[in-house]
Amino acid sequence: MSGRVKGFRFAGVHGGIKGGDRLDLGLICADAPAVASGVFTRNRVRAAPVQISERRLRSGRCQAVLVNSGNANACTGKQGQNAALAVTRTVARSLRVRSSLVVPASTGVIGVQLPRENIEAAIPDLVDDLSAAGASRFARAILTTDRGPKVARAELRVGRTTCRLLGIAKGAGMIHPNMATTLAFVTTDAPLHGPTLSRFLRHATELSFNRATVDGDTSTNDSIYALASGAASTRTIEEHSAAGRRFLSALTELLESLATKIVADGEGAEHLVRIVVRGARTDSDAVQIARTIAGSQLVKTALYGCDPNWGRILAAAGRSGARFNPDHVSVQIGEVSIFEHGTPVMTAKTEAKAAATMKRAEYEISVEVGSGRGLGHYWTCDLGHEYVRINADYRT
Amino acid sequence: MSGRVKGFRFAGVHGGIKGGDRLDLGLICADAPAVASGVFTRNRVRAAPVQISERRLRSGRCQAVLVNSGNANACTGKQGQNAALAVTRTVARSLRVRSSLVVPASTGVIGVQLPRENIEAAIPDLVDDLSAAGASRFARAILTTDRGPKVARAELRVGRTTCRLLGIAKGAGMIHPNMATTLAFVTTDAPLHGPTLSRFLRHATELSFNRATVDGDTSTNDSIYALASGAASTRTIEEHSAAGRRFLSALTELLESLATKIVADGEGAEHLVRIVVRGARTDSDAVQIARTIAGSQLVKTALYGCDPNWGRILAAAGRSGARFNPDHVSVQIGEVSIFEHGTPVMTAKTEAKAAATMKRAEYEISVEVGSGRGLGHYWTCDLGHEYVRINADYRT
Repeated sequence: MSGRVKGFRFAGVHGGIKGGDRLDLGLICADAPAVASGVFTRNRVRAAPVQISERRLRSGRCQAVLVNSGNANACTGKQGQNAALAVTRTVARSLRVRSSLVVPASTGVIGVQLPRENIEAAIPDLVDDLSAAGASRFARAILTTDRGPKVARAELRVGRTTCRLLGIAKGAGMIHPNMATTLAFVTTDAPLHGPTLSRFLRHATELSFNRATVDGDTSTNDSIYALASGAASTRTIEEHSAAGRRFLSALTELLESLATKIVADGEGAEHLVRIVVRGARTDSDAVQIARTIAGSQLVKTALYGCDPNWGRILAAAGRSGARFNPDHVSVQIGEVSIFEHGTPVMTAKTEAKAAATMKRAEYEISVEVGSGRGLGHYWTCDLGHEYVRINADYRT
Repeated sequence: MSGRVKGFRFAGVHGGIKGGDRLDLGLICADAPAVASGVFTRNRVRAAPVQISERRLRSGRCQAVLVNSGNANACTGKQGQNAALAVTRTVARSLRVRSSLVVPASTGVIGVQLPRENIEAAIPDLVDDLSAAGASRFARAILTTDRGPKVARAELRVGRTTCRLLGIAKGAGMIHPNMATTLAFVTTDAPLHGPTLSRFLRHATELSFNRATVDGDTSTNDSIYALASGAASTRTIEEHSAAGRRFLSALTELLESLATKIVADGEGAEHLVRIVVRGARTDSDAVQIARTIAGSQLVKTALYGCDPNWGRILAAAGRSGARFNPDHVSVQIGEVSIFEHGTPVMTAKTEAKAAATMKRAEYEISVEVGSGRGLGHYWTCDLGHEYVRINADYRT
């Protein structure tokens, strides 16, 4: 899957936001206005670039995305709005496209004004840097506290053509007032109608980013952008077709890959854990149970301690709000059964086995809550000393 | 406030549940059947004693409460139910009261059968130990990982009589599969009708225990019991009267005192923090915002780090689901203003002041979100290395 997504170029340069000469300014540019859609944070406190992007993407078209790291442009009032509008205007002028086709995204410190002049001064360099091979520089330019760039690829056949998807994300939990945010950018050369892309993006986000938690906090800047150039084929992918289903499946897989990379990079996390719930009354009940287990501080500290603690898992399931009979609950860590039909079955031997599974970088905990058809999962990570160190000791 | 609550005796002995000769069995006994009510965990996974107590208290009467620590009698199936019924039967026989007037409460290890024979063998000693002055032994007998006993008193005048309330609680967050639970026992000599006591208990719990969080987890055994002997006076306190309002206020104060003692004893907690929200559209919006801030891992690690991190407070408020305008938000740490009308106003000087306030054992963070009349608060504590150590490193 090394083929390039047709119709896009990428860039990443140092724009004078972060210290040193670190990359902090990225650009995605489509050769022509692309079909576009976005999903944005539900937080009531929304950064200026989120507000502008949401408004501009209502047209269903977008040609360029300007991203900066090092500054979130959140809680910056009218001046922050003006700065975001100004830098997209400069990009538009430089690319010779309409301003309304350029959207901004920011991540970094909250409550500090965007260094607008520095960014404007760097835009000519940024546009010069655009190339079909520039994705890796772009991926590095958008990082904050991430341990490394997060890139995923997918492809699907449509007739005789191969359509490609490229996803690039940043995020490692929402950290201090400073380094907030999950950002993800999906480009594809598949030909799609706007409303189809929009519905696919919402659906795939629900099954991926909305099934992952580091610390339960939603940032002021969380955004996912999707741009479709249509350059791979002239035959539009219809929503309700075999190709449509394949595209949705490829997009979901792409976003899930990015979301799990973010959870695995959760501040200080050592384990990526998939909580799977089966046998609930409905899928939504199953997800609710999985989400409550995944978000429980007590479960997450047990994951850190590699402690096969079925009591905490059960107690979290019990307070999820979903209805189930505790006598029908069974719990497995990886392949090891530790609780069956409401009764603990852990022996010294199975406990050691379960604890060994929990030492892995990635594993699954499955919880059966009955004989219903409801199935759902949630990704989580452990909560350990490193999380506390990163989040508490930062200023001291 | 040293006067005794009339009509009750208390006891605490070693019942062979915990190792050594530590107190692990407590008894409250009323001289005659008392007016009684209970509030129980909403967790779907409920321990045997919770189920039995809830059923028996429906009659509105109770004469004795048998409490053990060291074993939660949760996830123990039919055998656990039978054991709880058997030990209350033994107490009833020994006290010569009906079994249906005796309720059980347990706290400790989940998933291990109650050592029924040990408890039954200790009941004669327990009954012998009963005395009007036995509350402090009872308070010690019900502890698990608590740093110490939690006792609170209140009183009110009704005509020429003084009515007294005594509250005894245990709890320090919900810990490992093992030491779950908040338990609280209120005895009063005020004369009240059953439905009045029941409504007062619900209301006071809502304003106290339901406004306090250590880690957001609800245990399988959480229970609050209230028993009113009526021994102080023959004039019943009516719900809608000045005396009724005074009783409710005394009960709320008592429960709040117990709840904050539990939060302050939250595992590893160094700071007890009251999050107050003003200016919301409704009280329920204000509580929702306060609860989301109080429960945020990022806010709690910032409290641990003594970091006046308005960005995390704002982001938590923004995701609470309550409607407000971020431009109208102001935040104070103690007396120090750090964010005003949507704009950070922290200087090096005020930051140092705010950080100094945050070093205190107890302080308040107030968040104004607009000009509405909605007011609410939530108690929380910091999340630090000690919490991780207690909860993750327990088994390793």
